[in-house]
Amino acid sequence: MSSRPGPSLSGGTPLRGLEEQDVLDRILPLFRPSAQVIVPPGDDAAVLATDGRTIVTTDTVVLGRDWLDAWSSGADIGHKVVAQNLADVAAMGGRPTGILVTLVADPLTSVEWVVDLAQGLAEASEGAGVTVLGGDLSSAPDGVVMVSVTALGTMADVEGAPVLRSGARPGDRLAVCGSLGLAAAGLHLLMHDAADRHPEAVAVQRRPRPPLEAGPAAAAAGATAMLDVSDGLARDGGRIARASGVVLELDRPALDPDVAVISEAVGVETAWDCVLAGGEEHSLLATFPGDVPPGWRLIGAVRALFEGEAPGVLLEGRRPQHSGWDHFGNGEGRRP
Amino acid sequence: MSSRPGPSLSGGTPLRGLEEQDVLDRILPLFRPSAQVIVPPGDDAAVLATDGRTIVTTDTVVLGRDWLDAWSSGADIGHKVVAQNLADVAAMGGRPTGILVTLVADPLTSVEWVVDLAQGLAEASEGAGVTVLGGDLSSAPDGVVMVSVTALGTMADVEGAPVLRSGARPGDRLAVCGSLGLAAAGLHLLMHDAADRHPEAVAVQRRPRPPLEAGPAAAAAGATAMLDVSDGLARDGGRIARASGVVLELDRPALDPDVAVISEAVGVETAWDCVLAGGEEHSLLATFPGDVPPGWRLIGAVRALFEGEAPGVLLEGRRPQHSGWDHFGNGEGRRP
Repeated sequence: MSSRPGPSLSGGTPLRGLEEQDVLDRILPLFRPSAQVIVPPGDDAAVLATDGRTIVTTDTVVLGRDWLDAWSSGADIGHKVVAQNLADVAAMGGRPTGILVTLVADPLTSVEWVVDLAQGLAEASEGAGVTVLGGDLSSAPDGVVMVSVTALGTMADVEGAPVLRSGARPGDRLAVCGSLGLAAAGLHLLMHDAADRHPEAVAVQRRPRPPLEAGPAAAAAGATAMLDVSDGLARDGGRIARASGVVLELDRPALDPDVAVISEAVGVETAWDCVLAGGEEHSLLATFPGDVPPGWRLIGAVRALFEGEAPGVLLEGRRPQHSGWDHFGNGEGRRP
Repeated sequence: MSSRPGPSLSGGTPLRGLEEQDVLDRILPLFRPSAQVIVPPGDDAAVLATDGRTIVTTDTVVLGRDWLDAWSSGADIGHKVVAQNLADVAAMGGRPTGILVTLVADPLTSVEWVVDLAQGLAEASEGAGVTVLGGDLSSAPDGVVMVSVTALGTMADVEGAPVLRSGARPGDRLAVCGSLGLAAAGLHLLMHDAADRHPEAVAVQRRPRPPLEAGPAAAAAGATAMLDVSDGLARDGGRIARASGVVLELDRPALDPDVAVISEAVGVETAWDCVLAGGEEHSLLATFPGDVPPGWRLIGAVRALFEGEAPGVLLEGRRPQHSGWDHFGNGEGRRP
């Protein structure tokens, strides 16, 4: 159950024996241009039909830090890196329109793995109505494989302004769209060779499912602040709190169902860790002055700072113990 | 002369001891938003005012493959990776508008080097009137440092269509804007610890100077095909030839001055190698049906294929011996 399908990173035909063009010839046919593409990939640059406001964001995954080959296939990584970028576009209230992909890989990386990756990139982007606009392919030192995606999006047919992190106001409701803690629980199970205890959690860990449509809907419904949960509810909530100069008070009973979903598989204490600090979920977290749109559920409220109080996230009056993932600092990172 | 200024990669304060936010706090103030920026970096994504046609491209540099710490400072790398991306935008006939930057670095990389890199990114992009729209910061395995840039551009105020590689027609003139062979000669001199033999070549190797304004001017003048010389005149010319189904005949006397500029420093044979196969120059190469615009110089002509002939580049009736750089293949790569 914990083994993943697809070609392995290091078996098969090494990239080393191929010309760059040979590799591109196997990959580029997987990507289908959309109606907005004026010049498709293959030239110096692609050209995309755009209007008024273009959203741009970028995010990278690195072998050994963001994934292990034993747990995630190339296609899984393609799905994951697309999902996390498109979630950032949705979290602004926009709709994704295109991505660019950079693969930097050890020349011993198998081309079959690269094609599997490209398949995942193509599936995930097509599933979201998004085009692959270009990319870059580079060799890397021994053992290094990383995939970097830049995503573009539009606010063209979205009512309302881009939704920042800084707009939460005292009295707003705090709501989430999508699951909490599943991706972290899935990682925990993979680490303990117990993936069959909760296949859905493992599936979300491998291929996150951000509710992309909920982003523009939240913008239209007047969301005052929004982001996607990439580094954990406490840490990402803290970002809204600091940017807005407020406190987010989490409602413990509202989180009980999230904990219940995974507590049998990982135990209650770990389940709370996953729900509060689990990253890579890419659900959307937002604040609303009024009713929340369909598909969103209330998990707390925004209040003003007391005098001398620092902005942050509170659960039953306390800062949650786990703070999520930090790339360089000595946080309690949960990723491999 | 061959030693470079700026903090070293591995001395100073390691990233390891810092939180991601601490690093961002040192970098982000270096980047100044332009008038087109609706939402600056710092949120989930940036938002850029755009119109009709947006150009997008991406390119990456990797320590040990694209640069050596002994030869290029962080600021040099910032200049270089911006230049090579903006050259791709110019080569479509467009004007650059913004970049996104990803740094994936060994946690032992010094933060002083990272700030120096950011300074170079900021200088190069400001010099081109371009904004840093966002980025990502990730840790990497030991010894790995790579910088990936995605550039955006616009065709908004440019006359004419995007200039592809595929439009060269028999009878067109082949022209270049900018130098040829300097960057490769500079690399050769660095490799032979003889940088003081041609400081300008070394300077171009460290900080390429693509003629960005010449791209839109070429588009307006009716260029039929264009790209920037990133992998060498023969190899990049071959890309136009194959995409257009033609032969590009180089005019040897027209290249003599390029050879002359560097032959004293590197010798005549190496000078020809540099001019024909030297990459990283980022000058623009284009074909024109009529007169070439100011600043461009004729270096050859486009002719139809003979029966059974393959598209390609010819010099005095022969294919140039050196074919430039290939990332995974066993070409005569000249980079470190």
